[in-house]
Amino acid sequence: MNKLYVVGLGPGSFDGMTQKAHAAILASDVIVGYTVYIDLIRAHFPDKEYRSTPMRKEVDRVRLALELAASGKTVAMVCSGDAGVYGMSGLTEELLSEYPGVALETVPGVSAVLSGAAILGAPLMHDFAVISLSDLLTPWEKIEKRLLAAAEADFVICLYNPSSHKRRDYLKRACELVLRFASPKTVCGIARNIGREGEETRVLTLEELKDTEVDMFSTVFIGNSETKVINGRMVTPRGYLYE
Amino acid sequence: MNKLYVVGLGPGSFDGMTQKAHAAILASDVIVGYTVYIDLIRAHFPDKEYRSTPMRKEVDRVRLALELAASGKTVAMVCSGDAGVYGMSGLTEELLSEYPGVALETVPGVSAVLSGAAILGAPLMHDFAVISLSDLLTPWEKIEKRLLAAAEADFVICLYNPSSHKRRDYLKRACELVLRFASPKTVCGIARNIGREGEETRVLTLEELKDTEVDMFSTVFIGNSETKVINGRMVTPRGYLYE
Repeated sequence: MNKLYVVGLGPGSFDGMTQKAHAAILASDVIVGYTVYIDLIRAHFPDKEYRSTPMRKEVDRVRLALELAASGKTVAMVCSGDAGVYGMSGLTEELLSEYPGVALETVPGVSAVLSGAAILGAPLMHDFAVISLSDLLTPWEKIEKRLLAAAEADFVICLYNPSSHKRRDYLKRACELVLRFASPKTVCGIARNIGREGEETRVLTLEELKDTEVDMFSTVFIGNSETKVINGRMVTPRGYLYE
Repeated sequence: MNKLYVVGLGPGSFDGMTQKAHAAILASDVIVGYTVYIDLIRAHFPDKEYRSTPMRKEVDRVRLALELAASGKTVAMVCSGDAGVYGMSGLTEELLSEYPGVALETVPGVSAVLSGAAILGAPLMHDFAVISLSDLLTPWEKIEKRLLAAAEADFVICLYNPSSHKRRDYLKRACELVLRFASPKTVCGIARNIGREGEETRVLTLEELKDTEVDMFSTVFIGNSETKVINGRMVTPRGYLYE
């Protein structure tokens, strides 16, 4: 059977990968991915064939992986975090039928909403919404609507792609929308370079976050009305202590 | 340093655990957890001390883990999925200051929103909301408000704790709320026994989901307006094909 694994590597470091992800890469002949993720694993699996493609060439990358699998190779297409969260797994499912005989298996990984939460404290705990601020594939009006809805219903909010060169003020705009419903004192957090060199966290208020610049290696968390700072960590209590 | 790891084991099977989780358990003297999760790992780490506590005794379990760590042992408190998603990490952060000298590290795991998505296809891909239907620690009115907000803003919705003996009709009520904004033909999915024996998936419409009974081993996904069925799998396209 011609096999394609779509593998989420988890946060930056090698040990954030699941054992199943490790086994899928070991079982593969060829590893396909964006250059940065390939470099994360190459040293650990030196005897594999590697095929890297540039950023933003998602369709080419998926087709390359599918073509290699259709030609009889066992292929692992790797990405950081989880392939199902703003990743490659949807596109692969869409194109799969053009490559008969290829069996697809998605191996989930720890996405930044989970790994970022773990280094900040326990910001999720309760119901939460994950929203990408990138308007490359989603109209800004839809992102705006989701930010307002999540804030009004008191979700904890996790923001992916909070910034880029072209979207410097998007985080500020997102905070202004959330501030229509949330207190300026709402506890927020930034997790940067999760699981990689230079890993750092910052806990701040929503008012402060509005005027903070973050980079594309950051994941942003906006607490709900119950989120607190405990010993410098961002924690949303779930209510066990008050049973 | 007295150390407590709060470890998410990922989906049911041993290989869904990250290598970091594996290392944390290996480094620990005592493993604390709910009986079912202890049984998942005992055979793999036979020479550890195990302390299990019953379900619903969350405060006791966290205090036991903190006491053992304060006494000088290295402790791993384990749970399924991720400890930061409706898990034990918030409570541990809250109680930590009562046990001076204990260092806490949360090791994230693959939560059911990610592992369930992977076996169903690629239902998330876009912005999504995670909502628990358990009203044990959250008033139903708040859950209702969040369901309505998520549906109105066209989030993909993932439901944790969709059913229990006492809450047999909650999934039906949730679907009725979502139906105020979403089409009855909205694509939905059920992932059951993820990563364990008896793993199964079902793809169905929102109308059908409303009249379906699920058990407590199930995670439910409600697609957004763009979610499709492709080769029997639940897929929310992200738009790459239309660039």
